[in-house]
Amino acid sequence: MNDRTIPWSSLKGKDIPATIKLDHVIHRFTSPGCHILDIGCSAGNASIPLASQGFLVTGIDINPEVLQMARRSSLSRNSYQVPLFVRADAITLPFTPESFDIVIMQAFLTTIITKEDRVRIIREACRVLQPGGYLYLADFGQTWHSGIYRERYINDLPVTKEEGSIIAYDQQTGEVSYIAHHFTEKELVFLLVENGFEIEFFKNDKFVTKTGNRVNGFVAVGRKEA
Amino acid sequence: MNDRTIPWSSLKGKDIPATIKLDHVIHRFTSPGCHILDIGCSAGNASIPLASQGFLVTGIDINPEVLQMARRSSLSRNSYQVPLFVRADAITLPFTPESFDIVIMQAFLTTIITKEDRVRIIREACRVLQPGGYLYLADFGQTWHSGIYRERYINDLPVTKEEGSIIAYDQQTGEVSYIAHHFTEKELVFLLVENGFEIEFFKNDKFVTKTGNRVNGFVAVGRKEA
Repeated sequence: MNDRTIPWSSLKGKDIPATIKLDHVIHRFTSPGCHILDIGCSAGNASIPLASQGFLVTGIDINPEVLQMARRSSLSRNSYQVPLFVRADAITLPFTPESFDIVIMQAFLTTIITKEDRVRIIREACRVLQPGGYLYLADFGQTWHSGIYRERYINDLPVTKEEGSIIAYDQQTGEVSYIAHHFTEKELVFLLVENGFEIEFFKNDKFVTKTGNRVNGFVAVGRKEA
Repeated sequence: MNDRTIPWSSLKGKDIPATIKLDHVIHRFTSPGCHILDIGCSAGNASIPLASQGFLVTGIDINPEVLQMARRSSLSRNSYQVPLFVRADAITLPFTPESFDIVIMQAFLTTIITKEDRVRIIREACRVLQPGGYLYLADFGQTWHSGIYRERYINDLPVTKEEGSIIAYDQQTGEVSYIAHHFTEKELVFLLVENGFEIEFFKNDKFVTKTGNRVNGFVAVGRKEA
């Protein structure tokens, strides 16, 4: 736990956004009984269905409350198989090398507010993947055509110090809740290709945020170089 | 005519690519009998159908040969109405202010290889539009997830001096044929909002180039501030 993880670690579980749906393209990369690690699993929106489909799913998150929610939710569904939920920090994963066939990150990197930490996280994901394994990544894209986002990128820059980052405020108290980063295609591609992955799949998409804004997004699958 | 226009002015008409189809969203902005200016009309792929739908279309291009092709093609179709084709340079349009309701640019800005000229062209389009008129713009986006384009953006940078620009070679002679620019969303949005337009419509798209590569693209409609 360090400064970086404090907001996410102490947010109320129900306040953690989880808005991007798993793209069906993931099933091009799964195989029966494969081991999947869901980094930043939140309340288990991706982990729980994947486990119930028969995959061996481990979900990690930094927030203990949201992991409790995920656990309860997984048990309430009477599924054939449930994920294992583990409290862990994505920068130093508590797993041995090459433990997983697929790592997924859904709107997770957006919460990591320095380039250096993102690099460390991608390398760490690479470490725990089998050679030839896949990193499935869905995240927000910079949405300059939206006047609302354009203004936020510009106005929040003196605080965030990174283009494309925005400040999210608590809707009740008005206080800063967390900072989120929106990516450019170039940025996301280089984050993968410079840290152990080849691009296996890439698409531009549209997502809807927790507050109902339409925003650009990407779905990318990187293959760990063998 | 200046240095900038030489390659496009002297290319053989049949060698001028014209690959992006007109998006049907344009019909949200047309009205019966409206005046449309098609900048960089090439062989008339957009102008001719629009004229046959009853709009009053003027197509301009810097290349005399392609204008001949466009003219012949328009006559051969036995349409109710054909466009007027005019040889002109987009930087200094031979039209009085507020002459048009809609200006279209299909894969045209991609051929303009300096930021300064792009600004002059957008301002000139603005000048000839009615207040409240629309600029419809479809163009190529930087496609970093493609290994082929990623390599070209990087390798061609010492020559093009602008990120996202690529060199197109003549497939017979191997000589440099022209330079093309691919845009970021931010770049295209600011080109409009800093030069007289509000963003009225914006979408991320996929286009196929003359040589069959899939490439990111944008369709944007700007509204001239009244």
